[in-house]
Amino acid sequence: MLTHLTIALDMMGGDYGPRSSIPAAISAVHKYPHLTLLLCGDEVSISNALRKHKADSHPRLIIKHCSEVVSNNCEPAQALRNKKDSSMRVALDLVKNKQAQACVSSGNTGALLLIAHFVLKMLPGIKRPALISAVPTEKKQPVYLLDLGANVHCDAQTLFQFGIMGSIVAGETCKGDRPKVCLLNIGSEDIKGNDTIKEAANMMKATPHINYTGFCEGSDMFSGKADVVVCEGFVGNVALKTCEGIAKLIMHKFTKALKKRFFYRLLAVLLSPIIKKLYRRVNPDQYNGASLVGLRGIVVKSHGNASNKAFLAAIEEAIREVEKQVPEKIEATFEQIALDEEHSPSSLKNY
Amino acid sequence: MLTHLTIALDMMGGDYGPRSSIPAAISAVHKYPHLTLLLCGDEVSISNALRKHKADSHPRLIIKHCSEVVSNNCEPAQALRNKKDSSMRVALDLVKNKQAQACVSSGNTGALLLIAHFVLKMLPGIKRPALISAVPTEKKQPVYLLDLGANVHCDAQTLFQFGIMGSIVAGETCKGDRPKVCLLNIGSEDIKGNDTIKEAANMMKATPHINYTGFCEGSDMFSGKADVVVCEGFVGNVALKTCEGIAKLIMHKFTKALKKRFFYRLLAVLLSPIIKKLYRRVNPDQYNGASLVGLRGIVVKSHGNASNKAFLAAIEEAIREVEKQVPEKIEATFEQIALDEEHSPSSLKNY
Repeated sequence: MLTHLTIALDMMGGDYGPRSSIPAAISAVHKYPHLTLLLCGDEVSISNALRKHKADSHPRLIIKHCSEVVSNNCEPAQALRNKKDSSMRVALDLVKNKQAQACVSSGNTGALLLIAHFVLKMLPGIKRPALISAVPTEKKQPVYLLDLGANVHCDAQTLFQFGIMGSIVAGETCKGDRPKVCLLNIGSEDIKGNDTIKEAANMMKATPHINYTGFCEGSDMFSGKADVVVCEGFVGNVALKTCEGIAKLIMHKFTKALKKRFFYRLLAVLLSPIIKKLYRRVNPDQYNGASLVGLRGIVVKSHGNASNKAFLAAIEEAIREVEKQVPEKIEATFEQIALDEEHSPSSLKNY
Repeated sequence: MLTHLTIALDMMGGDYGPRSSIPAAISAVHKYPHLTLLLCGDEVSISNALRKHKADSHPRLIIKHCSEVVSNNCEPAQALRNKKDSSMRVALDLVKNKQAQACVSSGNTGALLLIAHFVLKMLPGIKRPALISAVPTEKKQPVYLLDLGANVHCDAQTLFQFGIMGSIVAGETCKGDRPKVCLLNIGSEDIKGNDTIKEAANMMKATPHINYTGFCEGSDMFSGKADVVVCEGFVGNVALKTCEGIAKLIMHKFTKALKKRFFYRLLAVLLSPIIKKLYRRVNPDQYNGASLVGLRGIVVKSHGNASNKAFLAAIEEAIREVEKQVPEKIEATFEQIALDEEHSPSSLKNY
């Protein structure tokens, strides 16, 4: 474990701003004694909120005043050009300037992607950044799904690179075994899907850097069969949000069915803790942070209407990635791939 | 209601063949006194199964012997070329030759799509057939999702046509109001998504033939906000199968949580009917039939490992579509669109 760790928080993002980010920040510094948080945002709002929670003199909660905010409906390109003193930009600049080892924001996803890409830049050899998140499975360990929407469409090489990055992020969770990497497709047979997916599958089969195990369908995503599921951003985003939608639907139908009879209503009260816990667990978009991988720095995105707990979970995800040295490992692997390429027949040149 | 109705069933498809299709066929003729079923498949297997259920002399269950079967792992093109006396092909031929008004199969989806397309042909003016299915929502009426995998990629015009066809299929369910049609996207703002989706959105906005209400995200799909959700086949297939996967996951986690304490285990027993019913409801791929629309005939696809009940649900879906005259309505609307086009400025020519 690291002896000291600094993370920059965009305090003004999301639907609630400091209201949800302050309690999460306070919980985090209490839970992690080696953690310092740089709170980026409006000084007055933040210090008022800290005072309200009797944490205004905490030595590891340091305010970095910013005069601007990137709102949820701000155009990403506008935010990049015109909001140079926004809490989001300042938090990312702190990572770039090595004053923080990671950044967490629950703000405008499009703006965060664009500004993070611009400020931090890609790791050498990587084409595109990807949004990745852990999704629960029937087994103990989660499955990592990427891309969740950073890239609407992806070519085969991008999908291949996402497989490598996903495998590194999942690496530590699988205790010894190499993470099993799948490509999300509309059937498990080799003939299914489009040319891009088939080409990415051939690239993944050929590389020694991942344990590629074939195509996987949406229905298999949560079985624990795969540790990493790769797809283009459009598909990943729809899949993740469909999880959220169907989880809401199930809870709605279940609660409604339980309300129909007095006896069931009684059961519902008894079951309510289980139901709530379950809902949180199967609703990954809402609860876990999604990380942006492929950049020269760690950026974690928390859901826009995230609760304190969800924002804390995102901070903890950032801590894990700093400790796991995710960007360093990605860089080293892609260096190795470049070396392999130099010494390999031309068939591998495209990787 | 029609006074007489004939439907051809592919009895040999799916994982169980006549074992699940026979009980469903018997239930259907009992439930619908105006219904005759043409049972396509191996005569010996079918009559043995009928005898087992004491239904071998039922006057409205007529066997059409076929010497071949399209297996689940048969290549669609192979099935089309070489299996001309298969139960699937014969059932579709019966629709083509007007001896049946619809066909139901739980066989190989790829083969069914290809053979149905080849045998029945497209309705005039329609580019591609689509797979459509009703998915449950928080409201009483379901939402119709298309395409579920008939077309991996779709251009804007195809998506536009799917909107029209989806609206016609949903038409009757919405009692008076015109069905609200959405395009599935990774955000609800106009700037989100790729060029194809934006172009399809513009086409949908411009036509008087549907009530287009904008983009919708995966998380909103089950809220009842939309009556029809349109997307390309890859995305629709992943979304539908993700529903199946997450429903399985929730049931798994819920059952596991309930098993932890004796008290909860008792509750689980009491709740089991609700849980089972709910699982069936939120698992549309498993339970409802998916219809192939855009062809000159009605084809309903039941899930490969469908139960008797699910196969019966698919037969009932076929009955509904015959009664609603879905292909006739689609044809009439596209004729109208062609007429509009002739009399409109060039900007509409692409529709």
